[in-house]
Amino acid sequence: MIRRLDAEERDSFLADLPGWSHEPGRDGIRKSFSFGDFVTAFAFMTRVALLAEKADHHPEWSNVYNRVDILLTTHDAGGLTMRDINLATAIEAAAA
Amino acid sequence: MIRRLDAEERDSFLADLPGWSHEPGRDGIRKSFSFGDFVTAFAFMTRVALLAEKADHHPEWSNVYNRVDILLTTHDAGGLTMRDINLATAIEAAAA
Repeated sequence: MIRRLDAEERDSFLADLPGWSHEPGRDGIRKSFSFGDFVTAFAFMTRVALLAEKADHHPEWSNVYNRVDILLTTHDAGGLTMRDINLATAIEAAAA
Repeated sequence: MIRRLDAEERDSFLADLPGWSHEPGRDGIRKSFSFGDFVTAFAFMTRVALLAEKADHHPEWSNVYNRVDILLTTHDAGGLTMRDINLATAIEAAAA
């Protein structure tokens, strides 16, 4: 079982993930991404879907036209783990 | 400007859209789709994305692993229109 990060670890990793914030109610991290239009937003979602499937770790996410909201948490651990940090880091690279 | 459907028109169209229900707060229609896994769910989302872009009418939707929740409403009209009915009909064909 992968273990949950403590607050100090979490804040340390979040410092390197601009725009990501802690969601206390879920012990997850979230970010809202905006793009020029739906096509660009969905192209981003497709990249994230491939990253998620490869990592076997999947986001909770929503899309409205050019906006994509992503929440990452680890259901098996009941909160934030390195799986979320690693996926957020890969998502940042995909969004860059 | 495309006009909103009245309640009688809406209920008549919904009768042919199994699983879709009226969302009064938004005057939209919604349905939750479940698939075998994330890959199948996202493949469905990709089909819906192409249908939406072709129709120039986009869903508000979310995904958690194998589940896809879709809300359709027409922002320009402030509620439900034929655009939503037509997109829901196309989504049903894609899900079949």
